[in-house]
Amino acid sequence: MCLVSSDDPRLLWTVDMLMDGVDFDSRVHSWSAIGRKTMAVNLSDCAAMAVVPVSAMCAVALSNKLALDDALELVRGAHEFGLRCGCPIVGGDTNSWDAPTAISITVAGRCEPGQTPIRRAGAQPGDRIWLTGAVGGSILGRHMTFEPRLALSGEIARKVQPHAMIDISDGLALDLWRILEASGCGAVLEETALDAAIHADAVRLAAQDGRPPREHALCDGEDFELIVVAPADAAQSACAALGLLPIGQITADPGLRLARAGGVPEPVPVRGWEHFR
Amino acid sequence: MCLVSSDDPRLLWTVDMLMDGVDFDSRVHSWSAIGRKTMAVNLSDCAAMAVVPVSAMCAVALSNKLALDDALELVRGAHEFGLRCGCPIVGGDTNSWDAPTAISITVAGRCEPGQTPIRRAGAQPGDRIWLTGAVGGSILGRHMTFEPRLALSGEIARKVQPHAMIDISDGLALDLWRILEASGCGAVLEETALDAAIHADAVRLAAQDGRPPREHALCDGEDFELIVVAPADAAQSACAALGLLPIGQITADPGLRLARAGGVPEPVPVRGWEHFR
Repeated sequence: MCLVSSDDPRLLWTVDMLMDGVDFDSRVHSWSAIGRKTMAVNLSDCAAMAVVPVSAMCAVALSNKLALDDALELVRGAHEFGLRCGCPIVGGDTNSWDAPTAISITVAGRCEPGQTPIRRAGAQPGDRIWLTGAVGGSILGRHMTFEPRLALSGEIARKVQPHAMIDISDGLALDLWRILEASGCGAVLEETALDAAIHADAVRLAAQDGRPPREHALCDGEDFELIVVAPADAAQSACAALGLLPIGQITADPGLRLARAGGVPEPVPVRGWEHFR
Repeated sequence: MCLVSSDDPRLLWTVDMLMDGVDFDSRVHSWSAIGRKTMAVNLSDCAAMAVVPVSAMCAVALSNKLALDDALELVRGAHEFGLRCGCPIVGGDTNSWDAPTAISITVAGRCEPGQTPIRRAGAQPGDRIWLTGAVGGSILGRHMTFEPRLALSGEIARKVQPHAMIDISDGLALDLWRILEASGCGAVLEETALDAAIHADAVRLAAQDGRPPREHALCDGEDFELIVVAPADAAQSACAALGLLPIGQITADPGLRLARAGGVPEPVPVRGWEHFR
């Protein structure tokens, strides 16, 4: 998400394109759910910076195999979910071709008066790291149905005044790493706290594929929870009151590490979903 | 092109998605030229409403067969052309998949202070119809290399104050028809004047495919010249001074007709490029 123009520091926009067979599977998911997801990932980008979405543009490359009703359901799914979040689709571009369907949505949004967008840079040693919810295993279904944390993000901006924030699209480890890189810091995650933030879906998925639940929590993408970095003392009670989950602390030492009770912190592999590998 | 939000009547945006095998052919066109075209069709949308482009977002679904250098050339081609027109790419979304390449660009722009966007509705009986240049046969090459009429559009807005304007993306007949529908009017094109606005490429293409040059001028898409509808008397000298080509007149009678010297005006078939046929 970035400024539309330097003339207006409160107006931002973001774009996300979803493709059949990559971000959704049209053999499994309804076209309405696919449209909803495309809007929702953009709204999550807004939530990540405490930006209030205003309106959206939608461009589609529809498979020639798609029925007109399915195409309408796709756009309607996006529009209706956007509308519910104050962000209707106001225009777009419709195309068809002899290839799978791709849909791209651009969302514009504004910061609340007196607020500035919350960025990735800004984390400081000693800050605490919080999550807006448990993570991992979203592929079991939540990646299509998640709720962008728009309302919570506004409350966090007002009550916690975080130093940095991001939404988890590519995995907790990788997206936290982006904050660390942008801020020139490191972080230590606390084992017990992290384990308390593992989603039940991560445990279910672990039972299926044999990988540890914690690995799913760290590396699975598309959780769309927010990582919130806030000053330890000032934000503690506010974060707890908002139901955020503490998972660790920002350090001056670079790198991402995991602290086991009584042990020396060990490096966490920074892995997740990488685009255009 | 439409308003981002009703709060700001001078801020608009537009989106266009181009797909390999439909809008360009990556076996023939360079990736840089493909990027340039994607930006240019959006800038032409801006020109059509006398909106000054400000910045762009770019989402790509890159074919897995694409080399990284080609992907960079695609985005660079779009960015550099945009930059030359005051409209850099400021952000985007990069993806890859096992399908042909698609690229979607969203452009935001502003009207000059004191101006409002020029729309399709507004044509009035008696108004004259002008073109910013000759049309037809763009498929021979101009559809990849056209210059969006941004500067000329600004001059037209200031000096001619048109009642309606549109850019020719889907063909003169079809895009003029959009003005007529939006304005609740008809139009009569004048044979001699129309023939003077046939591009040399339309004549060359006619020699190849045996269809009349005038049919190419009326029905070929991707000319990206502007159709300018302006009051007859007030705009006459200004339009001529800007080098615009007069082609006909708005009528109260609905429909699009062609007037031959000394004959009764005959209906013109409204055909052109139609999306999602």
